[in-house]
Amino acid sequence: MKMMKPAFWSGVVSVFAMAIPLTNVMICQQQPVGNGFVNNLMPQPASLTVAQGQLVLSPQFAANSTGFTDARLGLAIRDALLQIKQRTGLEISLHDVAASNNAVLSVAVHGPGEAVQSVDEDESYSLTVTSTHVQLDAATVVGAMRGLETLLQLVQPAGENYVLPSVTIHDSPRFPWRGLMIDCGRHFEPVEVIKRTLDGMAAVKLNVFHWHLTEDQGFRIESKVFPKLTSMGSDGLFYTQKQVEEIVEYARARGIRVVPEFEMPGHSTAWLVAYPELASGRAPTGIRRQFGVSDFALDPTREETYRFIDRFLSEMATLFPDPYLHIGGDETVSPEWKTDPRIRAFMTAHQLKDPDALQAYFNQRVLKILTRLHRHMIGWDEILNPALPKDVIVQSWRGQESLAKGAREGYQGLLSAGYYLDGMQPAGKHYLVDPSPSNTELTPDQRKLILGGEVAMWGEQINDHTIDSRIWPRTAAIAERFWSPENVTDVDDMYRRLDYISVQLEALGLQHISQEDASLRDLAGTETIEQLRIFASVLEPVSFGERYQQQHTSQLTVLDRFVDAVRPDPPSRYKIERLTRDFLLAPREDSADRQQLEGLFHGMLATVPIVKQQMAVSPRLSEVQTRVEQLPRLAQAGLEAISYLSSGKKAAAGWKQSKLSMIDDAKKPAGIVRFTFLDSLTALVNAVSE
Amino acid sequence: MKMMKPAFWSGVVSVFAMAIPLTNVMICQQQPVGNGFVNNLMPQPASLTVAQGQLVLSPQFAANSTGFTDARLGLAIRDALLQIKQRTGLEISLHDVAASNNAVLSVAVHGPGEAVQSVDEDESYSLTVTSTHVQLDAATVVGAMRGLETLLQLVQPAGENYVLPSVTIHDSPRFPWRGLMIDCGRHFEPVEVIKRTLDGMAAVKLNVFHWHLTEDQGFRIESKVFPKLTSMGSDGLFYTQKQVEEIVEYARARGIRVVPEFEMPGHSTAWLVAYPELASGRAPTGIRRQFGVSDFALDPTREETYRFIDRFLSEMATLFPDPYLHIGGDETVSPEWKTDPRIRAFMTAHQLKDPDALQAYFNQRVLKILTRLHRHMIGWDEILNPALPKDVIVQSWRGQESLAKGAREGYQGLLSAGYYLDGMQPAGKHYLVDPSPSNTELTPDQRKLILGGEVAMWGEQINDHTIDSRIWPRTAAIAERFWSPENVTDVDDMYRRLDYISVQLEALGLQHISQEDASLRDLAGTETIEQLRIFASVLEPVSFGERYQQQHTSQLTVLDRFVDAVRPDPPSRYKIERLTRDFLLAPREDSADRQQLEGLFHGMLATVPIVKQQMAVSPRLSEVQTRVEQLPRLAQAGLEAISYLSSGKKAAAGWKQSKLSMIDDAKKPAGIVRFTFLDSLTALVNAVSE
Repeated sequence: MKMMKPAFWSGVVSVFAMAIPLTNVMICQQQPVGNGFVNNLMPQPASLTVAQGQLVLSPQFAANSTGFTDARLGLAIRDALLQIKQRTGLEISLHDVAASNNAVLSVAVHGPGEAVQSVDEDESYSLTVTSTHVQLDAATVVGAMRGLETLLQLVQPAGENYVLPSVTIHDSPRFPWRGLMIDCGRHFEPVEVIKRTLDGMAAVKLNVFHWHLTEDQGFRIESKVFPKLTSMGSDGLFYTQKQVEEIVEYARARGIRVVPEFEMPGHSTAWLVAYPELASGRAPTGIRRQFGVSDFALDPTREETYRFIDRFLSEMATLFPDPYLHIGGDETVSPEWKTDPRIRAFMTAHQLKDPDALQAYFNQRVLKILTRLHRHMIGWDEILNPALPKDVIVQSWRGQESLAKGAREGYQGLLSAGYYLDGMQPAGKHYLVDPSPSNTELTPDQRKLILGGEVAMWGEQINDHTIDSRIWPRTAAIAERFWSPENVTDVDDMYRRLDYISVQLEALGLQHISQEDASLRDLAGTETIEQLRIFASVLEPVSFGERYQQQHTSQLTVLDRFVDAVRPDPPSRYKIERLTRDFLLAPREDSADRQQLEGLFHGMLATVPIVKQQMAVSPRLSEVQTRVEQLPRLAQAGLEAISYLSSGKKAAAGWKQSKLSMIDDAKKPAGIVRFTFLDSLTALVNAVSE
Repeated sequence: MKMMKPAFWSGVVSVFAMAIPLTNVMICQQQPVGNGFVNNLMPQPASLTVAQGQLVLSPQFAANSTGFTDARLGLAIRDALLQIKQRTGLEISLHDVAASNNAVLSVAVHGPGEAVQSVDEDESYSLTVTSTHVQLDAATVVGAMRGLETLLQLVQPAGENYVLPSVTIHDSPRFPWRGLMIDCGRHFEPVEVIKRTLDGMAAVKLNVFHWHLTEDQGFRIESKVFPKLTSMGSDGLFYTQKQVEEIVEYARARGIRVVPEFEMPGHSTAWLVAYPELASGRAPTGIRRQFGVSDFALDPTREETYRFIDRFLSEMATLFPDPYLHIGGDETVSPEWKTDPRIRAFMTAHQLKDPDALQAYFNQRVLKILTRLHRHMIGWDEILNPALPKDVIVQSWRGQESLAKGAREGYQGLLSAGYYLDGMQPAGKHYLVDPSPSNTELTPDQRKLILGGEVAMWGEQINDHTIDSRIWPRTAAIAERFWSPENVTDVDDMYRRLDYISVQLEALGLQHISQEDASLRDLAGTETIEQLRIFASVLEPVSFGERYQQQHTSQLTVLDRFVDAVRPDPPSRYKIERLTRDFLLAPREDSADRQQLEGLFHGMLATVPIVKQQMAVSPRLSEVQTRVEQLPRLAQAGLEAISYLSSGKKAAAGWKQSKLSMIDDAKKPAGIVRFTFLDSLTALVNAVSE
């Protein structure tokens, strides 16, 4: 078996005199490998061999399944055929999909896998494409699903046809726990958003949907035992039990586990609005609209609290079959734990020296409930305490060191630090964060305790319109980190494939690309957004924290501004970075990179008059007035730098300093958005000689 | 009261040297009227007076309701506030929305209206905005909903604020029946598509959703009495009764009636797949995949047929409270009605001389059932027969003459001919079709029988991805025809407002604009579609019939081609037509129209190299290869014509003929799409002197 190096990115130069729209400059033609195969797979498989030949897809493409089969497998095969049909336009029949006599695709599954998919589920598969046949073998139905997703990504054009190149793939994940956490507490996300997100997760082989269901800002799941939790704590925005069952089933049909999170004892304002008797003293007067850490907490000293939790979790356990249940546990701050005589007396009586010890006591009590319910506990870093047994999983938001500490003490762990989407970091940065890097000081046995990681989509500044562009396509890159071999780290190749997978994700129903234009049209009040689109393409949202400083968002803030329209890590960032890097290697007049870079900067200049006109009649757009004032100066600096560098001329004394200080100015907060290309521009300016 | 003339369209010229993307050329600045008010209303109200002043919107904007109120009104007010909140970004509270003590908006409703909204519902309202207060008065809750939609369309920018200009509006519809028919039989449309369509309908004051639920290609509604109708006749794609109730309620909450259609006795293949014993002889072997007229029909000569229909319609009547029920009735062709001795004997015994008479007999029998169920009958032209009573409504797909014939005979009627969206006609053409034009030969009393009209969205060549762009925004223009005074016929002003309303419709969740780019990305397999987008913007789908000739579509055809991506009547068509018209009035060198037109043609030229590159690697894109070959020649002809005209020079002999014949060539079928600007180009070429 031979591990292929991913095909290297190469750009075909598009020649324009000037004013090239930004999204225009790179038509990628990948280097053909062997049989014309272009490796667009994401995540990359563990092993891939390319052979001569290809299978030409036709309307007669059909499938059968041998070995184990069930309804779930049948639906997965049908769905794969439907997607091939849609991508190719071929009239492939969807009747009797798993029982064709002339099957081109044979799916052989050895067994059903676990009754309830667990972290130990065997997801391995192998896939062999010849010019006449596709053989997919898998240990379990879930493994077959993974293989079908790979098959879909293999479909590619060849002349007038769509083909599957001849390959042999043997594949299995590096980490068994590959999750996406969505906070539906701070802002509610409708069922259809969850469903399309699950579709996207399945496409990139993520296997855990961690559903953050309760927060200070809202209790989002119906309890029939305690109906006030939603009638008083949700503003009417919650999932009914029927919807929860529907989502759990939808996820199961895609090989995705659903791990619910119920935050306790902190982040629990919404519980306490409904049931103030559970509070450690004062109770809130209403749902908390502000974000940050509240100082309300469940009272760990009263038996009533545990009776409540017992009844509540018993009810929830009937909805969520997964063997894991997340209790949150982070950021618990209760003044009463330090001041209330009754609570202090309880602590003394139980030899609990401080609030951390009290929380550990609480966790032990909850653990007993979970154990009775046959559920393992997960919690954030703060739950880590020697008093807890070793089957508890610690999810680290604090970082790799915190995770390693847990592993040294024998706890299984998940990394989430490094995968916080609201940090608005580029995909390439998340991509290089490894849950268990080979340069760790952990022993091999300790490393085995790192089960994987979870992408975290916190909910303060997202809604159902913007969530897709915050999650995708960056999450696809992180999904590759969780699945693929550790040495798959070529950022350039990742970005090449990300363009491809991103469009496929949109075809599944996600709206991470189209939402930007729709929002820009809404802001401008017209369909005429050609220049506004180019302007927006070089801006991205600032991080959650920076936005919070510039605009003190609460749950009531309307998320319909320019910052909500633009996407984190838009294509412009990597494109300009890449062109700059290549141009600086050989800055000549006749450089194709130079031509493209100049085109981009001219394109930016050209947007300014129209964008200013549109801002003048849109109060919401005018929030980014400063950015449209800065853009022409920045673009001009870029053009001057390119001119100096390609001609080999020197700039006048002081030129560099004045440009760098202008760039610094453009880094200052304005409009809650930032330019995507300032690092590249800095590199260009710095390369000029004076 | 003074009827305002709609503000006249005027374009602000955008100056570019060349290669202006097509969607870029018109930033509309409307002429301010009085208080800065820009009349963007669609449909236009019956009467509007503008006063000095405006109401500045703030986060304190709040509402109360006086007079009659109910839950439906409360939700409508809440929804209006939510939309104002989203459009302005103001943190308007949505709590106690209809009971504010400091209400800026007072809604006074005189009564609840009818228990079940009927064609007689009073939809009138008046709306007065002063600088401090908005007063909305309406006879019914439905009238208040119409007024709230108008209010939302009044929101406009003024400097740094959003405002409501001071106006007084008295409004009521010209026609009481303003419908949209969607054929969910030939292709199923998911519930969310129906819901967002209802949102769009409410925004433009349409009030009847005509739901075409059964077809040869599928039976789309669950019957608990006859479950085989969907288990055998729907491919699993149907609405459950629970979903139907949900949609009826969703429509009711928006002041929209739901009129179901069950096609009989023809277009009934799907019934007969399940219940072959109801057929007039032979029964189908399966769901019909081909379109067109089938030769299966229910048997009108057997009592069993009527027992079945009775039980079925009795069940359906419990789901649809509307007093009208549509029985289809069009295109019934059954060879057995001419040849079967048993049927012929029945006809002789009942003195039914031909198949038409037999169908009339059938209709009379069904009418009895409907009468017992307290439902009025509607059907297509073919049901028109003197034997039917006068409370039957005839819906005309044949044309205004057929409608007038019905009216002369005393039948109420609806016009649908002229509003067939699958004809892919421009909005401006539909807009000028009047259900009851003043130059009619009907008497005033006969004219009163014309209840209105219905837009028809037939389902042969649409799916859930493409339906929005086929319906919107053209349907908004037709909605204005149904609501506004007969003399509101300024096509230029309609197109100006259509750009505005189209974007608002998208903000409601419709995807008619964004779907195009998403599909182009899917076709190209990359996010880089800047040039492809410009290329696509001057192409539109050919009509249903033309497509059917070029590509024999069936229900199994995959609707994911270039023709499915592009939109009918895209902005390019009107823009180029308007610029051409204005330029030809005064074809000078310094004409701004000339500059814009040249920019557009240069823009088309610039797309060609990249689009060809992308076609080379996308089999589905390559279907429009011919069009990309033709485009540069057409654009070049346009540039030459403009040059001759603006310089006053003559072309060489033969130039005109050669260009016209090239244009004729470009009108020939290719790629199932057509250029949008050939009429304008022809006008330019014809204006040149030789």
